[in-house]
Amino acid sequence: MSETRPAPLTGLKVVEISAFVAAPLGAMTLAQLGADVIRIDPIGGNIDANRWPISDDGTSIYWASLNKGKRSVTLDLKSEEGQKIATDLIAEAGTLVTNLPARGWLSYDNLVQHREDLVMLRLNGSHDGKPAVDYTINAASGFPIITGDDERPVNNAIPAWDVIAGLYIANGITAAELDRRTSGKGQEINLALSDAMLATVGNLGYIAEVQSTGKTRGPLGNGLYGAYGQSFKTSDEREIMVAVISNKHWRGLGKATGLSEKLEMIGPMLDVDLTTEGGRFEAREAIDAVLRPWFAAHTVAEAATALSGAGVLQGEFQTFEELVNNDPWCSLENPLFGEIEQPGVGRVMAPRVPLQFGGSPVADAVPAPTLGGDTEGVLAELVETSSENWLFANESVYR
Amino acid sequence: MSETRPAPLTGLKVVEISAFVAAPLGAMTLAQLGADVIRIDPIGGNIDANRWPISDDGTSIYWASLNKGKRSVTLDLKSEEGQKIATDLIAEAGTLVTNLPARGWLSYDNLVQHREDLVMLRLNGSHDGKPAVDYTINAASGFPIITGDDERPVNNAIPAWDVIAGLYIANGITAAELDRRTSGKGQEINLALSDAMLATVGNLGYIAEVQSTGKTRGPLGNGLYGAYGQSFKTSDEREIMVAVISNKHWRGLGKATGLSEKLEMIGPMLDVDLTTEGGRFEAREAIDAVLRPWFAAHTVAEAATALSGAGVLQGEFQTFEELVNNDPWCSLENPLFGEIEQPGVGRVMAPRVPLQFGGSPVADAVPAPTLGGDTEGVLAELVETSSENWLFANESVYR
Repeated sequence: MSETRPAPLTGLKVVEISAFVAAPLGAMTLAQLGADVIRIDPIGGNIDANRWPISDDGTSIYWASLNKGKRSVTLDLKSEEGQKIATDLIAEAGTLVTNLPARGWLSYDNLVQHREDLVMLRLNGSHDGKPAVDYTINAASGFPIITGDDERPVNNAIPAWDVIAGLYIANGITAAELDRRTSGKGQEINLALSDAMLATVGNLGYIAEVQSTGKTRGPLGNGLYGAYGQSFKTSDEREIMVAVISNKHWRGLGKATGLSEKLEMIGPMLDVDLTTEGGRFEAREAIDAVLRPWFAAHTVAEAATALSGAGVLQGEFQTFEELVNNDPWCSLENPLFGEIEQPGVGRVMAPRVPLQFGGSPVADAVPAPTLGGDTEGVLAELVETSSENWLFANESVYR
Repeated sequence: MSETRPAPLTGLKVVEISAFVAAPLGAMTLAQLGADVIRIDPIGGNIDANRWPISDDGTSIYWASLNKGKRSVTLDLKSEEGQKIATDLIAEAGTLVTNLPARGWLSYDNLVQHREDLVMLRLNGSHDGKPAVDYTINAASGFPIITGDDERPVNNAIPAWDVIAGLYIANGITAAELDRRTSGKGQEINLALSDAMLATVGNLGYIAEVQSTGKTRGPLGNGLYGAYGQSFKTSDEREIMVAVISNKHWRGLGKATGLSEKLEMIGPMLDVDLTTEGGRFEAREAIDAVLRPWFAAHTVAEAATALSGAGVLQGEFQTFEELVNNDPWCSLENPLFGEIEQPGVGRVMAPRVPLQFGGSPVADAVPAPTLGGDTEGVLAELVETSSENWLFANESVYR
């Protein structure tokens, strides 16, 4: 495959007016796939401009990480002139992603007057107008109740609903772009963060489970549901996750630990069929009890070597520092990463999109812009494509 | 917008040969967006055919939930004849999603001989060949260490990396389809589940945080990082999540609880600026202490009413049963859901894709097929489009 083409979304132009995680991640994903993304913020930045974590000089690492590969324009979006420039930029790009209330000048009905085939995706908190963010949606999802050892709610540390919504946003735009190239027509797309959660809960079977069986699953600590898996402490005070999702893994677990005979005793003891995932799930406490002393007598490295040698899925728990500083997966050895010089943050590794395209490869990882750093350049381009020169008379609304 | 067009991915044909969550979810997302997706399984089903949760008659609710809107074909994929039929189906469809090792007949190099512009996406555990699944990748991610109250690792109950990878798969296919419609060429796409995790960890700023500051964040229980948020027990033994991500929310929190004056004392007491997110984060323990008695003296309904009345983001923690049985978000009032009759499972609610397209709306939610239920129909179509009639001589390899 020596002959390659530009990144797959080359030619797509997107304006983003948003904040926080989901919408910026959605638009960044499009940029990573080759789209030209212009993020417009109010002068001084949107509400997420200074979000933690921050670098030693106060630059938002959060903002920098979610806006890689975009261009940044700042405008006085409260003034009519600023709104007019933003409208022109949206009309010129043809595609808009926003999580602002799409009212007034930012409504689809207004913007489509300026670009007939506009594709506009609006992220809402919920479909019925109730304000909602990842944290409050997560509380409603049911997952915190079954996270951890008991029914006390435990929040995810991953902002899963924001990330999932962000990837739905990218899907929505590319799907609408496919439709536009066929039909010549644009459209408005709505996505509610709560619906991204509800769809996921449904896709994972939790809704049908309650409706079909009247029951649901409870907390399992670090155990797997419906199969066998558990985390174990090792002799060197580390902890390792073990997952058994096939009979091959199950046999390997007995072989790696030398405990096959003891594990086999559990079947007749509890009247379960240990050659099925459900049977191993039902017998999980006895399996845990047989295995725990073996892990307590081995270092995590010994356990990992024995388990992986026998084809058992395993992974050591580690901190973010250990991931970044020690794990070869999270290093420049992994083609996912490039090294960037991020203004105010320093020289850091940044991921590309994790999709490796053989024929239309994506570009190297690139830094985020500085806030407003592309305003002049982008507006100059706009003037070139615009018949109006009123822009020059309105320098106070951008910088 | 009275004039509508077919769903955006109408016309795209996809073959899926996979199991578990990520690849089936990716292909299901394409089906929900309008693609014609044929899932091929070995006769008797793949390793996920009977996964829990199961209905009272033993039907996998898991499988049914992740394969909605696809057609199901079963073939003896170990036989040369079965592989030949699968190859013909892939060649006819032009697009393949798989999480099997793409070797031999299933390699891109072989399949592209049968369909020159083939788009083929392969999901791997990791980029370097180490076997990995959601659970083991999660252990490596760093998130379990900061989930919960202390550094003991706590697994997500959400299979976040699988869901995220599934949505990257859908993005990869639609992006490659856009490229194919422009260039006329297909390509191989690789996605490692571990890279979906690493990219997310990087996009959320954790990698740059360690590299730029040498530090990272620790466990925060149910608190928010870098802003103010906390969960509180209420007088009726419920628990509510509160999130403050703007100064408007902060003022609302004081107003809703009548505790503005006490909250204002915290600034000078701790020398922090409570008009900034970082300041509120630093003062979180004092804020918790001031607020906790108020929540303990109010029911969750009283608290929710007072907070939402003052514009504060809040959400009650609930179980999956409560979500499904009581929450209007999770009901047929929400246009996300349709009611389906799922064979072996019963009459249940099923989500559409959570993207609402104004111009090219997606179809209603539909059931999953029964395993192998479309084999005859799909093979009959194949014969129509094929010049060969050898299929009829090979009935033993499908059913």
